[in-house]
Amino acid sequence: MPKKVGVLTGGGDCPGLNAVIRAVTRRSLVRGHTIVGIREGWRGLVDGHFMELGPREISGILPRGGTILGTTRTNPYKTDGGVEQVLENFRAQSLDALVAIGGEDTLGVASRLFAEHGLPVVGVPKTIDNDLMLTDCSPGFGSAAKYLATSMREAGMDVRSMAGGRRVFILEAMGRHTGWLAGACALAAEGPGEPPHIVLMPEVPFDLERFLSEVESCLAHYNCCTIAVAEGLVDQEGRAIAEQRSATVYGHEQLGGIGGWLAQRIRERTGVTCHAAVADYLQRAGRHLASAMDVAQAYAAGAEAVRLALARTTDVMTTIERLQDEPYRWQIGTAPLGDIGDREKPVPREFIREDGLHVTEAFLRYLRPLIAGEAPPAFRDGLPDYRLIPWPAVPKRLPAFG
Amino acid sequence: MPKKVGVLTGGGDCPGLNAVIRAVTRRSLVRGHTIVGIREGWRGLVDGHFMELGPREISGILPRGGTILGTTRTNPYKTDGGVEQVLENFRAQSLDALVAIGGEDTLGVASRLFAEHGLPVVGVPKTIDNDLMLTDCSPGFGSAAKYLATSMREAGMDVRSMAGGRRVFILEAMGRHTGWLAGACALAAEGPGEPPHIVLMPEVPFDLERFLSEVESCLAHYNCCTIAVAEGLVDQEGRAIAEQRSATVYGHEQLGGIGGWLAQRIRERTGVTCHAAVADYLQRAGRHLASAMDVAQAYAAGAEAVRLALARTTDVMTTIERLQDEPYRWQIGTAPLGDIGDREKPVPREFIREDGLHVTEAFLRYLRPLIAGEAPPAFRDGLPDYRLIPWPAVPKRLPAFG
Repeated sequence: MPKKVGVLTGGGDCPGLNAVIRAVTRRSLVRGHTIVGIREGWRGLVDGHFMELGPREISGILPRGGTILGTTRTNPYKTDGGVEQVLENFRAQSLDALVAIGGEDTLGVASRLFAEHGLPVVGVPKTIDNDLMLTDCSPGFGSAAKYLATSMREAGMDVRSMAGGRRVFILEAMGRHTGWLAGACALAAEGPGEPPHIVLMPEVPFDLERFLSEVESCLAHYNCCTIAVAEGLVDQEGRAIAEQRSATVYGHEQLGGIGGWLAQRIRERTGVTCHAAVADYLQRAGRHLASAMDVAQAYAAGAEAVRLALARTTDVMTTIERLQDEPYRWQIGTAPLGDIGDREKPVPREFIREDGLHVTEAFLRYLRPLIAGEAPPAFRDGLPDYRLIPWPAVPKRLPAFG
Repeated sequence: MPKKVGVLTGGGDCPGLNAVIRAVTRRSLVRGHTIVGIREGWRGLVDGHFMELGPREISGILPRGGTILGTTRTNPYKTDGGVEQVLENFRAQSLDALVAIGGEDTLGVASRLFAEHGLPVVGVPKTIDNDLMLTDCSPGFGSAAKYLATSMREAGMDVRSMAGGRRVFILEAMGRHTGWLAGACALAAEGPGEPPHIVLMPEVPFDLERFLSEVESCLAHYNCCTIAVAEGLVDQEGRAIAEQRSATVYGHEQLGGIGGWLAQRIRERTGVTCHAAVADYLQRAGRHLASAMDVAQAYAAGAEAVRLALARTTDVMTTIERLQDEPYRWQIGTAPLGDIGDREKPVPREFIREDGLHVTEAFLRYLRPLIAGEAPPAFRDGLPDYRLIPWPAVPKRLPAFG
C-alpha cells in the first residue's frame, strides 16, 4: 500500500544534505510512495509548511550546496504548543513516518517525540562536527574535513613560499566541544615537518607555555609555523578560552575567536608576523570541495532510512559502520535513536599525540577514506552553478486537524 | 647570442606565480638562453642564492600553488649594503637582464635599481589586491576574486538555507587600501537580493549608522544579511577602523579585524546571530579555485617580459590591456616601470553604488571575464596534489665578485 513519508533537515547546513533528500525521495517514488518535504526543519512541522517532493524538485540537487528544504534550529519542545502542533500536522498530512536528518538536537527531538508520543521516526545523522555517538562518522564531516585539509595545505604552501620572512599562520576550524575538524587539517601534510605543525583540540586543556615553546621550536626548525585550532579550545579549568576572554576581560564585547587570541599571544612572545584565517561557514558550505565518499554515504544513509521508515522500523537512526580502514570498507547500519543521548563524541585519546599538540597516525588512518574522491558542481561564468529551482507558492498553514 | 636572464618573485604568494616562472623559463630555453632562478625575491639577489631553471624544474608547476622560487618582502634599499650586493651578484652571475615579478614594492625596487644603477630589468605585475596602476588588472587578482566570489555564494546559500533563523554573515577580504577583492564578492549574486547584500570598501569612509540601517533593511526583506568587507575599511577621518580600534581602545592588544568588529556592532543593534569568516591567506593560496583567465594572463605577461628582457627593452613592465568587456578581449602591453609610482589604484567611483554600500553593474562587467574558466590541480588521496619537486642543494653564497 502506498505510504506517505515526511522528511526534514535540521541544524546547520552541509554538503550532503541534498544527497540525503534526493535518496529519500527517489527510493520512495520508485516504489509508488509519496514524500512530503517539510520546510525549515522542525519549524515546518510546527507551522505546517510542506510540499510534495517529486522528480522535478530533486532534479539536479545532488551537486548543490544548501538544503532545498531549508533548515532552522527550531525545537518544538522549546516552542509554545510546538509538540501538539507537530503531532497535529503529522496527522493532518496523514504521514506514515518521518525521516529526520540532523545532529544531536534534531535527532534528540525525534527520539523524544517517539518515546513520548509514538511518532514513527527514523533519523539520519548529519553534522560537520562528527560528534554523534553510535556512528563511525557523520555525513557532512568528510566534506568539511576535505575543505579544511585543502585550505591548510594551500595556506601552508603560501607560508612556506615566504618562509624566508618567518611567519605563523593559524586556521580556526569549527568545533565547540570536539577536535574532529581541527584534527582533519592534519591531512594536509604529505611528509614530516609539513603543515600543520601544531593541532589544538578541545579534548586537551590548553597549556599556553607548552604551546608557545612548540611554536618557537617550529620557527627554529622550519622558519614558519602553521597551526590548526578548534574554536572551542579550553583552558585548564575546561572553560572555552574564546568565550571566557570576551566575557571576563572585555565585558559585553565579543571580540573574535581563538585564532585571533592565539595570534596575539604568539606576536607578544616571538614578534613574528602572525595571520589567522577563520573558515566559519565556508568550511560547511564549501560544496565545490565536497568529498565524494561523504556524498555517497549521505545518499546511502538516506536511502536506508526511508526503507526503514516505509517498513515501519522506526525509532532508529541509520549509521555508518566501518569494516576496514585500508582499503576502506563500510556499510550502513542502524542504532536505537534513544541511545544517541546528549553526549558529544570526543576525539579518542589514541587519536591525539601524547603532548596534546598534534594528531596520531591512527587519527589519519581514520580520516583518510572520508575525504576520498571529488564531487564538484558544474561551473558557469567562472563560479559553481547552484541555481535554485523555483518553488511554487504553497499555503503556509494547513486547515486545522479534526 | 645566448643570454642569461634572472627571474625573481617578490611579495605575497598567489596562484599565477608559477605560471609566470614557467613562461619565462620556457620562452628562454627554446631560444637557447639560460634562466637563473633567484630564491626568495630580492633577498636571493642580495645573498647570492640562485639556481638554474631547466625543463625539470618547471615541469608540472603550472597547477601548483606557491612559487617554486620562494618569496620574501626583503628590500635591498632597506638592507645594509643590499644594493651593492644586488649589483655585485648580478654581475657575478653575468646576468644580461632581470625579470622581477611582484607588486608595487617589488617593482618599485626594480625601477629604482634601473634609474640609479642602470640595472636592466623588466617587471611583471602580480598582486591579488589589483591595486597596480598602468595595468587593467594584475595577475593574481582573478583567482583571488574567483575564490572570494565562490566562498560568498556558498556561504550565502548556507545562510539562506537557515534564513528562518535570521542571521548575518560577514566575509572579510584582504585589501588594506582598496576594495577590489571585497568588491569581487559581488560576483556571487545571480539575481537581485542575492548575497552579498552589502559590500564595504575602503574607498568609501564607513558610516556606521547608514550601514546598520541597511543591515536592518536586509533582515526585514530577506530574513538574512550577507556582507563583504575589505580589511582596510576606514572611518570618516580616513583611519583604518580595525587598526585604530585595537590601538586606541585596547592598548597593545590586536584583536582581530574589521569582520569581527562589524559583527559585534550588528549584534548590539539587532540581537541577531552574526558570523564572520576571515579568508586571509586562503584567498590568495586557493589554487584549487584558480581562474583559467588569470593563469593565462600570468603566463602571457611572463612570456612577453622575458622576450623584452632578451631584446634588452628594459625598464618596462608588461601590462594587461583590456580591449573589450564582452566578449572579453585583451592583449599584453607595456608601460614604463618608472611610472608605476607608489600610488595604489583605488576602485573608481563609478564602480561603487552611490550610497557606498554596494558595487555597480560597471564593476561587475569589469570583474566577470577575470574569473572565467577553471584550472584545477590534480587531486590525490582526496586533496590537491601540489607535491614539491625536491631542489638540489646549492651553495648559499657565491664567491665575492672581483
